[in-house]
Amino acid sequence: MTLHISRLCLVGVGLIGGSLARALRAARVVDEIVGSARSAATLERALALGVIDRAEQDPAAAVNGADVVVVAVPVLASPAVFKVIAPALSATAVVTDVGSVKRNVVAAAQDALGELFPRFVPGHPIAGTERSGVSASVAGLYQDKHVVLTPLTGVTDDDALHRVRAMWEAVGADVIQMDIEEHDELLAMTSHLPHVLAYGLVGFLSRQASSERLFELAAGGFYDFTRIASSDPEMWRDICVSNRDAVAAALKGFQHHIDAMLHAIEAGDGDELLRVFQQAKRARDQGLAGKKP
Amino acid sequence: MTLHISRLCLVGVGLIGGSLARALRAARVVDEIVGSARSAATLERALALGVIDRAEQDPAAAVNGADVVVVAVPVLASPAVFKVIAPALSATAVVTDVGSVKRNVVAAAQDALGELFPRFVPGHPIAGTERSGVSASVAGLYQDKHVVLTPLTGVTDDDALHRVRAMWEAVGADVIQMDIEEHDELLAMTSHLPHVLAYGLVGFLSRQASSERLFELAAGGFYDFTRIASSDPEMWRDICVSNRDAVAAALKGFQHHIDAMLHAIEAGDGDELLRVFQQAKRARDQGLAGKKP
Repeated sequence: MTLHISRLCLVGVGLIGGSLARALRAARVVDEIVGSARSAATLERALALGVIDRAEQDPAAAVNGADVVVVAVPVLASPAVFKVIAPALSATAVVTDVGSVKRNVVAAAQDALGELFPRFVPGHPIAGTERSGVSASVAGLYQDKHVVLTPLTGVTDDDALHRVRAMWEAVGADVIQMDIEEHDELLAMTSHLPHVLAYGLVGFLSRQASSERLFELAAGGFYDFTRIASSDPEMWRDICVSNRDAVAAALKGFQHHIDAMLHAIEAGDGDELLRVFQQAKRARDQGLAGKKP
Repeated sequence: MTLHISRLCLVGVGLIGGSLARALRAARVVDEIVGSARSAATLERALALGVIDRAEQDPAAAVNGADVVVVAVPVLASPAVFKVIAPALSATAVVTDVGSVKRNVVAAAQDALGELFPRFVPGHPIAGTERSGVSASVAGLYQDKHVVLTPLTGVTDDDALHRVRAMWEAVGADVIQMDIEEHDELLAMTSHLPHVLAYGLVGFLSRQASSERLFELAAGGFYDFTRIASSDPEMWRDICVSNRDAVAAALKGFQHHIDAMLHAIEAGDGDELLRVFQQAKRARDQGLAGKKP
């Protein structure tokens, strides 16, 4: 399917939205990109960087006449955006989002969009860096990355789904589909849990009396391990609140697993520790082969 | 102090020992490097790579006539090495090690070396990668990295301490001194705890029914977060067993910290989560500035 977008509207022009705009422009599949953001400074920067062609602070004005609307704001900000843009959407517009949690975003979209809801395709690009903001956006962010779409069987329009899929494929992504609940549970484990652990480890060390010495002694392993603790706190607050059940379940499961390791450490059970470490190393070396960012 | 080593003996020719040999040779401060290792294949590879000049499978034969001996084996293998080399050491030799845990290594050295014990300078270079073995060794591994020395006040010879310090400075390292207990407690938090968590997270995910899909969905953040779970399982088994008290204490403290985050997640307490995430991001961005590996 050949994709052509006459007017793309981005509501939210940060790392994710900005990178999508850059990539679609590089792929020459979009004529005009209109951006909307809470902050006038962000819009000015996005204009100056050539990420957007036109800025509208009001999201309703921004979506006017757009054939594709991408909502790229922190997940707890989505409901208000859907409410504001709903009356201004064209009947043929396709709407999608990039939220890391799907259940609450989809519920908010259903609530706000009414009869336009079938034109909403829930999406989540599995890409990003610990940096944020439009200044960090790059055209290649989605190349060879997964994008998960979670359309509602029997509800989401096939045409809308195909357009959103084609948009992500145009920027080099590998699109996969799954249902909302599966997405939220899987991402709780692969993404939300590691972020909580990384924030937690840095927080734990920074509260020690020896914290200055601790950070001084930190080596490359610690640096990589905690890289994601430099991620945007508001975005991760929203994710943890939105996906609280799945994140809490993943965290409890992890704690249970770690309890067993703690017992082996306390008992000095080297055989058990070696078994657990070897199994983990094997799983990572095989499971993540070719995943190097 | 100008350093000159006539004969360096490495007992253990892996990533750490091999990189030290390469770096000392590049710094032109050593005449001859003799290597000893359990595996004949390792010694052949080390000879072929030019990391060592001469191979001796027997550690006692290897230390004969050496003025500096570096024991670079996994920490639980150190006691046997000290026993074997003790009778063969020259009275003027300086002995040091590279173990990630100091208390049990020092106790083993004291036990085995007897009146030569003052010539033993406990050391730990805070450097490494998730790879292991002499093939992964590189001359630049210690450039601008910390090396911790934990000499015993009133026991360790000043001359021996100065020679070991000069050796590490010759390869570009920044040498710091602290006492044994402080070292083992600090490293339990900055290094041993993150390794346990990384091994634990990969192990936890690999036991899920959906493990294949989970690894497929893993993004760059997860890749970096779990990089250290590809580390040598035997080395980390030894570290966790040797430093079990401090590692267990760090793990329990971390679990306690994470419990508080779990409660905030379950309660949907976004304000508390934002506060914790912001504080952690600030600590990392400031505390690890310039630490990028």
